[in-house]
Amino acid sequence: MAEYTLYCFAESGNSYKAALMLAACRLEWEPRLVDFFNGETRSEAWRRDVNIMGEVPVLVDGDLRLSQSGVILDYLAEKTRKFSAKSDAERREVWRWILFDNHKLTSYLATLRFLLRFAGGGDPTVVEFLKGRAEAALKIVDAQLGTREFIIGKRATIADFSLCGYLYYEDELGVSLSPHTNIRRWLDRIASLPGWKHPYDLMPYAPKKAG
Amino acid sequence: MAEYTLYCFAESGNSYKAALMLAACRLEWEPRLVDFFNGETRSEAWRRDVNIMGEVPVLVDGDLRLSQSGVILDYLAEKTRKFSAKSDAERREVWRWILFDNHKLTSYLATLRFLLRFAGGGDPTVVEFLKGRAEAALKIVDAQLGTREFIIGKRATIADFSLCGYLYYEDELGVSLSPHTNIRRWLDRIASLPGWKHPYDLMPYAPKKAG
Repeated sequence: MAEYTLYCFAESGNSYKAALMLAACRLEWEPRLVDFFNGETRSEAWRRDVNIMGEVPVLVDGDLRLSQSGVILDYLAEKTRKFSAKSDAERREVWRWILFDNHKLTSYLATLRFLLRFAGGGDPTVVEFLKGRAEAALKIVDAQLGTREFIIGKRATIADFSLCGYLYYEDELGVSLSPHTNIRRWLDRIASLPGWKHPYDLMPYAPKKAG
Repeated sequence: MAEYTLYCFAESGNSYKAALMLAACRLEWEPRLVDFFNGETRSEAWRRDVNIMGEVPVLVDGDLRLSQSGVILDYLAEKTRKFSAKSDAERREVWRWILFDNHKLTSYLATLRFLLRFAGGGDPTVVEFLKGRAEAALKIVDAQLGTREFIIGKRATIADFSLCGYLYYEDELGVSLSPHTNIRRWLDRIASLPGWKHPYDLMPYAPKKAG
């Protein structure tokens, strides 16, 4: 049995954040496929037994069961000392960008992609609203990367793995990354890290919606 | 001069998260009022000199300048040992709920309130969309509080200060807290902590939009 089990599915960028860390750290892990599109994460059993938040990813390490990609990333960085902060100042900077990702980038971008790709397209007004919010967040990330190779400096950290979570699903996002040239170059840099794989090559696909 | 300066304004629930921590820890701090409604946080000068993310709050402690409410809360909890986690497991649980707040509660609730109260009401379809998302997040917080006095257990922590950030603006939210009886009782518990004040009594109001 692998050391780690990750509840995940390939279409989930939040799962990808954790899966990419496991892969880039060369850890032994196995996916536990989640039947997301048929409601597994929103079932009472899931909320009671796995995660009250009704979300993936969930990482199992022995008796520990962790949820929220930011917590999983921080846990693995502390344990492996890889892609981790090296000082208190760096640690605050890493968390600052993980929080920004959760609050302003992933929150809008993942929802936008979900509506467009998995929920029949969504209401056009809502889609435009989410696009505007996602674009604004992308601009901030692009500006930050104008003077740095990775989000907090010269090394890749878990902040990069959090922020890039949805960006390799490029043609599914509903916003274009083309204007954001710093982001494009940074995604190539992350993709050059040993162990990197595209989300669709790193995790199993969830079964399609029944019926 | 006070030990801490907080860039903030009374209408900002994210500022309130930090201001409430400063007040509940009985720290010496002074607000530095931000002219939010006239665009100060979105100006080039602000992004260059204060916060590239274009956001409040920003906490100044000597030479340190910190942004993202979650980072500020964690910093003050570590420094004061108040409202902090007491073990690694608690620390992960605190971060888990701060991340959930940023990703699923504040992200939708703050945006909903902003549209309704400060941006002319917003598009009805977008408002309904945000209401649905905010309601779903509130249900999860209410369920968590069904078996606990505070979000991670018997003590108030910075996770509570993060999650409650927008909830005392109750009549401005666009969603009702009445069905969430555990949340209502928890808000009363937080309001009983020494030093607690309502956001409108703790920070100065931002000037109204010019013109």
